Amino acid sequence: MSHEDFKVQLFRFIDVLPCLATEQMLNDHIQEYFAQHEKVPAVLRFGAKSAGIGGYLGMKVLAKTIRKNIENMALQFIIGNTIPQTVRNLSKLRQRGFAFTLDILGEATVNEKEADSYAENYMRLLEGLEQARSNWSALGTDNSTLDWGHSPKINISIKPSALYSQINPADFQGSVEHILDRLRPVYRKVIELNGFMCIDTEMRAYKEITIELYRRLRSDSEFKAYPHLGLAMQVCLKSGDRDIGLMLDWARQARLPISIRLVKGAYWDYEIAVARQNGWPIPVHTNKAETDASFERCAEKILRNHDYCHLACASHNVRSVCSVLELARLLEVPDDRYEFQVLYGMAEPFRNALLKMADRVRLYCPQGELLPGMAYLIRRLMENTSNESFLRQTYVEGCEPERLLRAPHLSISETAEKPAPERPERSESQSEFGAFSNEPLADFSLPEVRDAFAGAIAEVKKKLGRTYPLFIGGNEVTTDTLVDSMNPARPDEVIGRVWLAGTRQVEEAITAAQDAFQRWRDIPAHKRATYLIRAAEIARTRIFELAAWQVLEAGKQWRQAYNDVAEAIDFLEYYAREMVRLAHPRYIGHAPGEVNEYFYQPKGIGVVIAPWNFPLAISCGMCAAALVTGNCVLYKPSNQTPVVGYTLLQILQEAGLPPGVFNYIPGAGSVIGDFLIDHPQTSLIAFTGSMEVGLRIIERAARTSEGQPSVKKVIAEMGGKNAIIIDDDADLDEAIPQVIDSAFAYQGQKCSACSRVIVLDTIYARFVERLVDAARSVRIGPAEVPANFMGPVIDESAQKSILHHIEIARKEGSILYSSNVPGGGYYVPITIVEGITPEHRLAQEEVFGPVLAVMRAMDFDQAKVWANSTRFALTGSVFSRHPKHLEQCRKEFRVGSLYFNRGCTGAIVEKQPFGGFKMSGVGSKAGGPDYLLQFMDPRTVTENTMRRGFVPVRSEGKWIE
Amino acid sequence: MSHEDFKVQLFRFIDVLPCLATEQMLNDHIQEYFAQHEKVPAVLRFGAKSAGIGGYLGMKVLAKTIRKNIENMALQFIIGNTIPQTVRNLSKLRQRGFAFTLDILGEATVNEKEADSYAENYMRLLEGLEQARSNWSALGTDNSTLDWGHSPKINISIKPSALYSQINPADFQGSVEHILDRLRPVYRKVIELNGFMCIDTEMRAYKEITIELYRRLRSDSEFKAYPHLGLAMQVCLKSGDRDIGLMLDWARQARLPISIRLVKGAYWDYEIAVARQNGWPIPVHTNKAETDASFERCAEKILRNHDYCHLACASHNVRSVCSVLELARLLEVPDDRYEFQVLYGMAEPFRNALLKMADRVRLYCPQGELLPGMAYLIRRLMENTSNESFLRQTYVEGCEPERLLRAPHLSISETAEKPAPERPERSESQSEFGAFSNEPLADFSLPEVRDAFAGAIAEVKKKLGRTYPLFIGGNEVTTDTLVDSMNPARPDEVIGRVWLAGTRQVEEAITAAQDAFQRWRDIPAHKRATYLIRAAEIARTRIFELAAWQVLEAGKQWRQAYNDVAEAIDFLEYYAREMVRLAHPRYIGHAPGEVNEYFYQPKGIGVVIAPWNFPLAISCGMCAAALVTGNCVLYKPSNQTPVVGYTLLQILQEAGLPPGVFNYIPGAGSVIGDFLIDHPQTSLIAFTGSMEVGLRIIERAARTSEGQPSVKKVIAEMGGKNAIIIDDDADLDEAIPQVIDSAFAYQGQKCSACSRVIVLDTIYARFVERLVDAARSVRIGPAEVPANFMGPVIDESAQKSILHHIEIARKEGSILYSSNVPGGGYYVPITIVEGITPEHRLAQEEVFGPVLAVMRAMDFDQAKVWANSTRFALTGSVFSRHPKHLEQCRKEFRVGSLYFNRGCTGAIVEKQPFGGFKMSGVGSKAGGPDYLLQFMDPRTVTENTMRRGFVPVRSEGKWIE
Repeated sequence: MSHEDFKVQLFRFIDVLPCLATEQMLNDHIQEYFAQHEKVPAVLRFGAKSAGIGGYLGMKVLAKTIRKNIENMALQFIIGNTIPQTVRNLSKLRQRGFAFTLDILGEATVNEKEADSYAENYMRLLEGLEQARSNWSALGTDNSTLDWGHSPKINISIKPSALYSQINPADFQGSVEHILDRLRPVYRKVIELNGFMCIDTEMRAYKEITIELYRRLRSDSEFKAYPHLGLAMQVCLKSGDRDIGLMLDWARQARLPISIRLVKGAYWDYEIAVARQNGWPIPVHTNKAETDASFERCAEKILRNHDYCHLACASHNVRSVCSVLELARLLEVPDDRYEFQVLYGMAEPFRNALLKMADRVRLYCPQGELLPGMAYLIRRLMENTSNESFLRQTYVEGCEPERLLRAPHLSISETAEKPAPERPERSESQSEFGAFSNEPLADFSLPEVRDAFAGAIAEVKKKLGRTYPLFIGGNEVTTDTLVDSMNPARPDEVIGRVWLAGTRQVEEAITAAQDAFQRWRDIPAHKRATYLIRAAEIARTRIFELAAWQVLEAGKQWRQAYNDVAEAIDFLEYYAREMVRLAHPRYIGHAPGEVNEYFYQPKGIGVVIAPWNFPLAISCGMCAAALVTGNCVLYKPSNQTPVVGYTLLQILQEAGLPPGVFNYIPGAGSVIGDFLIDHPQTSLIAFTGSMEVGLRIIERAARTSEGQPSVKKVIAEMGGKNAIIIDDDADLDEAIPQVIDSAFAYQGQKCSACSRVIVLDTIYARFVERLVDAARSVRIGPAEVPANFMGPVIDESAQKSILHHIEIARKEGSILYSSNVPGGGYYVPITIVEGITPEHRLAQEEVFGPVLAVMRAMDFDQAKVWANSTRFALTGSVFSRHPKHLEQCRKEFRVGSLYFNRGCTGAIVEKQPFGGFKMSGVGSKAGGPDYLLQFMDPRTVTENTMRRGFVPVRSEGKWIE
Repeated sequence: MSHEDFKVQLFRFIDVLPCLATEQMLNDHIQEYFAQHEKVPAVLRFGAKSAGIGGYLGMKVLAKTIRKNIENMALQFIIGNTIPQTVRNLSKLRQRGFAFTLDILGEATVNEKEADSYAENYMRLLEGLEQARSNWSALGTDNSTLDWGHSPKINISIKPSALYSQINPADFQGSVEHILDRLRPVYRKVIELNGFMCIDTEMRAYKEITIELYRRLRSDSEFKAYPHLGLAMQVCLKSGDRDIGLMLDWARQARLPISIRLVKGAYWDYEIAVARQNGWPIPVHTNKAETDASFERCAEKILRNHDYCHLACASHNVRSVCSVLELARLLEVPDDRYEFQVLYGMAEPFRNALLKMADRVRLYCPQGELLPGMAYLIRRLMENTSNESFLRQTYVEGCEPERLLRAPHLSISETAEKPAPERPERSESQSEFGAFSNEPLADFSLPEVRDAFAGAIAEVKKKLGRTYPLFIGGNEVTTDTLVDSMNPARPDEVIGRVWLAGTRQVEEAITAAQDAFQRWRDIPAHKRATYLIRAAEIARTRIFELAAWQVLEAGKQWRQAYNDVAEAIDFLEYYAREMVRLAHPRYIGHAPGEVNEYFYQPKGIGVVIAPWNFPLAISCGMCAAALVTGNCVLYKPSNQTPVVGYTLLQILQEAGLPPGVFNYIPGAGSVIGDFLIDHPQTSLIAFTGSMEVGLRIIERAARTSEGQPSVKKVIAEMGGKNAIIIDDDADLDEAIPQVIDSAFAYQGQKCSACSRVIVLDTIYARFVERLVDAARSVRIGPAEVPANFMGPVIDESAQKSILHHIEIARKEGSILYSSNVPGGGYYVPITIVEGITPEHRLAQEEVFGPVLAVMRAMDFDQAKVWANSTRFALTGSVFSRHPKHLEQCRKEFRVGSLYFNRGCTGAIVEKQPFGGFKMSGVGSKAGGPDYLLQFMDPRTVTENTMRRGFVPVRSEGKWIE
């Protein structure tokens, strides 16, 4: 399998295969996945009598063969898909001298019902093993209840994330507690059977939770006397050495013997992708030899501490295994303090040889249904086809043994001069400020990040209730109207008190801005950009505090609030570079004797009317764009979040903007809104908010009044009624959490939020069941408590409007779920309603709350038509593994931002320029390459360089010979 | 002088020097031109006691020195600036054995008064020579009235273009006649003095006129008996060999002996630049050796025909001269049949050596004022500093004689493998269609082009009066309203009869367009672009006919009409390539595990409301942009030019556009205008026309009506009140014709037309005098007659409005000139009014006719403020040789299209993207890189490519290691 494209298609096909319920689906997918390949690949065809059988019948036979072949491929790695079959196969293994550890394969746990059922499956499995156990004679010794005289016959491995659907690094203690609640009964049963339990390690994000789980369980007074509890630890993580060192220290201090399964780690690609997507340092060794070296170091450390720690050496690498074997002998480690583990179904010649050498070999045996087993299968196939894999190098490519067995530190130094670049691809937007890269998002798996956030909230709480002035022409200004901004979770808590501008202050601000504009527009673009870069630096140092203000004033969850500030920083950094790019005059269409320059100039006075839902990011984006392009700004923050708006003023002021360039004028829309729009001296209105207000602004701004210098430009981002399509082959493990997140995160108060999910009939029942259970599983309460997935909506008026829409939902459809809500704040229930079709108000009106309409579509064409059937065209998403359907949607699902196989919120600056059309906006794209153009007018300057027939060559370069 | 930048600055400084009337001006220019150079260059400083004298006094002395030095430099090449001084110096030359030919240096002839005065100067010069002649003994022989026994002592050279300010290749016969009118008296006087006259050759554009002049004069019954008439002919032209062959044939056939001065040519750089600017084949040899070879071939041809043709071999190239000398001896050409000429003041060692070898050496002696002499000086300096120059290679760089004297054909073959690229720089806009290049403009110096144009007008006249249907959904449609389109030069001549659409037809067209849109938008962009390329090809084959329609329906002059069609073709070709460029999805902001695409989709149904003044180009540009981006179009041509509008339909239909994609719906604005704008199903309005209509469209389009799918986009190009600033150091030779052209070409009916000229006080008198005389010199009459510079305005209503503005002009200012007009058509007088300041209506309102307000500014700052002092910001221009002023204007003269040292009309697609802001438009730029974006909405599609932790490397390339 050397052709990378083919490998991708094959893996994807295997990934989707279990979903292909009908012949038709199977045939369609085969066609779509392998259309470019001359015929269906041999690996799939194997066993079919391909010659002579054509047409429908031939296809039918072929399809059956393919399914069978892939099932067989999966069963090669899975010990059994029923308990009796599992027990049967385990017995065979034991007869051949291998011990086992059992792992139950499962779908992703997307709700608490599934977490319960996962735990329950272990209980049933353990019961099944209990019966078989008496028939198994012990390995390596006769007449013992323990294998090799020391090791329980029954051994299970268990994945913590499957035991709690709401696992969340930000809610560290809550996650640990909830997992323990389900883990304890299982462990109790293991002890009852005198068995062994290993806690598996999964993604790095859960590593600390997993370690904490182990410590809590191991030191639990109920269990501490029982030694058979293991923890899998990964050395492909750069933190591997340290993690293991700390674990050994803990064991010795707690005087509790432990067991560590040392693995290299199965999430290598995933961890790199996640890190890169989030802007984090790559947490894994990017050079395979470094992982191997770490493995040897860690194994040695454990072996040297064998009195406290038992080692399970889990590797298929001959060199790694031999080094452990030799070292254990050298250190005279007793046999009962170490064993070897390999994966069931992999590298059988190796495992047999190992058994001869090492006696104590345990096979890691996945168990369970084929459907959830596919994820496992792919991971194993990846391992077999990775270029770095020892197995591949040994068995497929016949690599010379000297190289494979070389000490890893030698291989490292050999490749040391080629370090993996941290960011090999360069951004479009780069300049003297360097290439643009997104602000890293918060890694809540790090305790220091959690502590910083909690600390910032505590600090901000001390500052509540202060009074904030207007800021006009560089001066603080107060007026005769002072209003309070409240915490939506506690409507009696005043976040801050804000003076409101009247028309007089607006007039003053316009005068100040006009005055400042005369100089600001002529400041070199590079210098204007520098103010933004400086502002970004300031925001970066205050990032937790800025997020904390949003938690309290806007009811944003930790992650949502942090992401908002990170996005604000992204806008500053991106637009700064974009302006530098656009400020270079373009020399176009040369002919000798003339030089043509094309460049841009600002429009004048910009009004920024900002929403409360991304109170810093969107405000900052619109203001930064207007400012860096050379316009002066009148910034009217939302009246729901004026204090967060004031933080923007602070940042820009600290960055040193000259007086009058940026003016902060909170005010009532009814008092100053039209005045700002109608004023002849405002040239530019950047607005984000509702369609009603947006259209009103567009209409008013288009009227030219006496003395108005230019046609006004309106950049309006308005509403959405965004749909996610769930195709018949959608991966629900991915789709369910993404729909929950898109629809309900930040209470559904995003213009990008999913408010319609269009589900294909064939997958409807399964989807809706899992979705509703997932909605049932989330917690609702104040955003400052990280365990709460959902908080209050922004204010009483929003609450009323959403409750009204829930009433409409009750009339138009049938409520699948409507949660309870806590008292006190402006809470509304998470609501899922089915039976909605395009003619319903629930399918057409923007609710701006956690209300999700489920629409059942007969086929994919209907789903597409429905997806496009609103006035809006903002975001959308498709969960599908039909390549053809995705290609169709690329064209025909016409929204500003479309996503495939991920949710429809969370656009990132530069990566997903954001904005829609139809009634969702005027076709601008914030955070994209065309955005700044809207804030400027293009100009050309043509210079005739010919004088008396003399044409300077200089300007044109070599224009002849 | 090896540093190219310095050379440019020095030449430009010398060019401007004669204008520097005051110490202050001189000092300023020295600072501005040489600021980057550590000190004032030695060549300028020479002779100044630079040491020890600082400050103001030092500068004053230095300035004086510089002026003196450059004057001396000029005088080195000029025989005298008064007649007595000229005679004195000529006498000295003759004493040294040199004959002469005298050429009067002059400013460019920008009006008929100057043409008269140029002829008059020759008469006075000849009178001065008449007196001196008797004191001169003949050269080479004693006691003859002729030098060398055969050659007149008095010899003048005369430039035809200086004898007629309206010289125009399109008006070939008229140009010849008018020049002859002034040339005959001069030649009569020459004959009276028994002298010799040579007609100088100038730019290639006038070559045919010049040859015709020679033939007409030579064969004139009054003069044919007198043999002493010469013609300079250039062999740097690729046509040189052929031109000379034809001339020799003519002489032999006409039995008239002739004299040819064989030169290589002084307009080499200029001809290349002009050709490249106009898209013509480069008319000169781009390899110096080719010119040299042609020189030798032509000289031989003449020498072999010495019985009919006298040769004046004019070259400084030693090899060229020697080859003529040797060949003449070989062919035994009598002495009286050839002579040698060199330039006065150049290469004195060479001329002395030549005299010894060849006896008969004549010096070409420019004569006249320093001011107009500067152009000549620069040409000589260029020659001295050109890398290709024989003189430079001989005297400055010490090139080895073998190389310099090598036969030119050997040098050619040596460099033959490196041909000069015809278009070495590549356009921004390129694609599978190849790089964009502008459609070549008409070269009216070619008789076939003139004939084709005249023929097309005759053909079109046969087709007048036909009836034209609407075109909706692929069908021809008639209605109950039929109107006539008239010829504005003959209001009783019907160009065509056009059915007008009512709202019913508009509704039908919208339905047809909506239907077509469903398919058109999904056609690959490349295919849509192909329709445009095909349309361009069709237009190209019909280019003269399409232009002819405009001459008759819109009253456009030949060149104006041709340029309009060429621009239409440019729009088609440019937007086709632009769309291909924009259709490539941009892959942005990659992170592993996700692929982000950014691309555009069309907006829907576009309404194009077109003006009559560029009846094909602007219509075609707006329609092509809308179509190629995937929109369907309702095209409402102007009711003044519906037949030209119909030609656009023909072209697009012939290109094969599917039915309904393009609909032709002429109609009364009062009937269908608002209906089109208000209709909920029109998404896009592209308009070019008046501010009043534009603002009305903008306002109405911003109202969202029931069922409207999207916010309407209006692309509006509106009026202008464009100013040209004439700085105190402006080159009036350039500025006068450019202002005349910008203000009055096509009767001033361009939104880009100059309607204000802001003249600095110090240059005011001179400028205004020359300007008014220039205006006085142009001819007014039907556009179909190419001698007419100006024609009728578009219709009676325009005529009334302009006449009304002339009345206002009379009240507000003082009329400097208001021409007579012919009867019959809708003519208005060319009008120039002075005494206008910004508060006047003449300085604020768009007249859209040939009315120019002259504004007298006290200084450059006032000029800049005045230039910006209108509601409009479309075009502008500055004639200045102050580098600092140009730099200021680049920023501060805020208009869409600004020009330096050329007029403010005639923007070319790609080179000068066109469009303004303030009340001139919405900041779009037709023919520029951002234009198409306005017709589309951007979209992003993000695909999550990660499955089960498996990240395909394919999409991201090598994203790690």
